[in-house]
Amino acid sequence: MNKQVFSSELLETAVSELSKMPSIGRKTALRLVLHLLRQSENDVEILGNALIDLRKNITYCHICHNISDVEVCEICSNKQRDSQTLCVVESIKDVISIENTQQYRGLYHVLGGVISPIEGIGPSDLEIESLIQRLKSGQITEIILAFSATMEGDTTAFYIYRKISEYGIAVTTIARGVAVGDALEYADEITLGQSIINRVNYKTK
Amino acid sequence: MNKQVFSSELLETAVSELSKMPSIGRKTALRLVLHLLRQSENDVEILGNALIDLRKNITYCHICHNISDVEVCEICSNKQRDSQTLCVVESIKDVISIENTQQYRGLYHVLGGVISPIEGIGPSDLEIESLIQRLKSGQITEIILAFSATMEGDTTAFYIYRKISEYGIAVTTIARGVAVGDALEYADEITLGQSIINRVNYKTK
Repeated sequence: MNKQVFSSELLETAVSELSKMPSIGRKTALRLVLHLLRQSENDVEILGNALIDLRKNITYCHICHNISDVEVCEICSNKQRDSQTLCVVESIKDVISIENTQQYRGLYHVLGGVISPIEGIGPSDLEIESLIQRLKSGQITEIILAFSATMEGDTTAFYIYRKISEYGIAVTTIARGVAVGDALEYADEITLGQSIINRVNYKTK
Repeated sequence: MNKQVFSSELLETAVSELSKMPSIGRKTALRLVLHLLRQSENDVEILGNALIDLRKNITYCHICHNISDVEVCEICSNKQRDSQTLCVVESIKDVISIENTQQYRGLYHVLGGVISPIEGIGPSDLEIESLIQRLKSGQITEIILAFSATMEGDTTAFYIYRKISEYGIAVTTIARGVAVGDALEYADEITLGQSIINRVNYKTK
């Protein structure tokens, strides 16, 4: 399809700006923009300013590097949480995912990426040095490495494992296995193999 | 899935505002917002302001009711276009679609909807009166009714046809038929039937 041409500059600008976002093409952007035109001026202003304010005012917790509105995030400053356990993740998205499980009460450390020689991301580009500083403070007794099961995730886990072995802290990693609700026959062999090796005692809820 | 909870108010506001848009759920909104956080402050400001400016400053051509930056839109004020032919459409989206075909050089009239008793939209809610005023001015010799092939589209076409029959203007409607590239066997019977009834002389390009 040819690039659509609009009779309005304002429309053109809004559509082309929106379509810079991932998975939003010009057709989708146009549909969204036409939707916005049917909303009140005030509603659109709230949306626009929400995006601008977010980008302008967001800060990252200077302890765990999670997204935050204040210097020390809600999780780090929460005295109810287990400050002896630290879960190391790639991005803030992972923090949100793990928080949603409501199964973890410890603290986090967001690396801001994983080691990826192909994309030119080395250990020094990540928050690994600050992780080690946190460990040196002595409170932490267990580190959970929670990365995606990719080459980059595994590399990062191994790098950190080597780096921190001298501190005598327990290092664990999240379990790999057949997903809840998945049929065995569709699980890939490596996952299924891992789930057999790392089998756990059967328990009823 | 439970509603995701974010540690940041700014993040929460941005996600919930974005997810008010059609076909954007909270998961997609979060992905878009995290994308925006990786962009420069300036880029996000441009996006936010593009949406706000569009809604605040957009006007509709007071002749054809198409979207426009000025009082009379580019199409209406273009002297090169055929001012004797008027294509009546439901929405500005249809103007964009027809303009993209580059097959039409006449003018438009945007109704702002179609007659739909179910949704409580009657003729007086649409730009039908202003259409008749345009016809009375006497320049127009042909009207093309270009509505979707739905009950509402057909009703609207019939209503307008009855209303304007007294002015002695040719009334046509866009051809219904098997879409270019579609296999005959998959065309529905009504469409295929229409395409036989309205067959045209064979011509080679």
